[in-house]
Amino acid sequence: MPSPTAAMLVIGDEILSGRTRDANMYHLARALTDHGIPMCEARVIPDDHATIVATVRDLAARHDHLFTSGGIGPTHDDITAEAVAEALGAAIGIRDDARAILQAHYDARGQELNEARLRMARIPDGATLIDNPISAAPGFTLGNVHVMAGVPSIFEAMLAGLLPTLTGGAPMLSQSLMVRQGEGDIAAKLGKLAKDHPEVSIGSYPFIRDGVHGSNIVVRSQDGQAVDAVMQELSALFGEAR
Amino acid sequence: MPSPTAAMLVIGDEILSGRTRDANMYHLARALTDHGIPMCEARVIPDDHATIVATVRDLAARHDHLFTSGGIGPTHDDITAEAVAEALGAAIGIRDDARAILQAHYDARGQELNEARLRMARIPDGATLIDNPISAAPGFTLGNVHVMAGVPSIFEAMLAGLLPTLTGGAPMLSQSLMVRQGEGDIAAKLGKLAKDHPEVSIGSYPFIRDGVHGSNIVVRSQDGQAVDAVMQELSALFGEAR
Repeated sequence: MPSPTAAMLVIGDEILSGRTRDANMYHLARALTDHGIPMCEARVIPDDHATIVATVRDLAARHDHLFTSGGIGPTHDDITAEAVAEALGAAIGIRDDARAILQAHYDARGQELNEARLRMARIPDGATLIDNPISAAPGFTLGNVHVMAGVPSIFEAMLAGLLPTLTGGAPMLSQSLMVRQGEGDIAAKLGKLAKDHPEVSIGSYPFIRDGVHGSNIVVRSQDGQAVDAVMQELSALFGEAR
Repeated sequence: MPSPTAAMLVIGDEILSGRTRDANMYHLARALTDHGIPMCEARVIPDDHATIVATVRDLAARHDHLFTSGGIGPTHDDITAEAVAEALGAAIGIRDDARAILQAHYDARGQELNEARLRMARIPDGATLIDNPISAAPGFTLGNVHVMAGVPSIFEAMLAGLLPTLTGGAPMLSQSLMVRQGEGDIAAKLGKLAKDHPEVSIGSYPFIRDGVHGSNIVVRSQDGQAVDAVMQELSALFGEAR
């Protein structure tokens, strides 16, 4: 059975302007790989309603899961929930279950559930809430779109609750070998190895450390025995097991 | 005159699998903002020929500049140059100017310009070389597509040479105010301010530090005086200049 596929949509002007360095994509990529739902593409787009609507439609149609981060807070530039609702043709309004969560959270802190905060209870009809153990305001899953916060600690907490509810495929297994030679020195043998073993994916990632060129060679497959076998050949070829 | 726009395409399975954390998007976003060529979208896609061709065509058609990172080394999984050439309908082969650069580089180090390394001299017809002061193998500009290396030190060095050759618009100016209140407490006033000042873009970015919720408010415009004026109102509203 083929693994389900995923895409990620990072929503936020602050990422595109370089004001903020996104952290959620890297976190999600690792988590999805471990869970057996490979991330096939990721996009970063601005806080623009029409762009969000069109991109959500496109990605949700082409993947089993779409994960979004950003734009679900209480301020005027938080427009993700409305846009996702429109993309999937759902109505959206303040929902009692979300309101109750926020009410309890702010009551406990002696803070007012004001109009701005109440915006965070706007949840599309038919959506399932995603728990936010950090700051209460929930994310949601609508169809195959999982809408989560942009603040990394909240994104990670939401994902930790969400991921076990999603059926993953066989996780992609990988092993790597660090070779203290530049890619140009190993490319011919490596290319032949890759051609001889279409059952695994072999990637080569160059690095420069202390002025010395090296290569990390990564062998990936859902079949652990296939990875083991190719790693043995790889070690025999380049001889620096790590 | 409107600013030119840019998109970025990060090419590499290793980013999507979470093996490597991309650093080039953040670097490019900052550099482009300073240069007055706003980044409007960014994508991460796998090392897949058809996907690269289709995505390059799409992004290059919709933006003044497309910057790519990754996939121009000597190994079998380095397929970006061929895909970009195909996307733009250019022929590609080993070019004498690129070969001469590599030959000089490897001669000086007593290394062989072998077949694998020679792949890095494959440059599309009509492309302009982008200098690589780190490891010699050049990037290239074909049409409005700037093809650069994935290794961050090389990407940054290539960009440093390339960017001054591109005509930027007025740079986007920004100032920010850190407010030690959660977004829910400031959202109403902030929303009114944003509505009153459509001449600037106002973003709000929540953070949690030592358990306390705060907000960074960022005011952006190409017009520095407009930013100044709104910042004064912002300080009067929330009173914690930073």
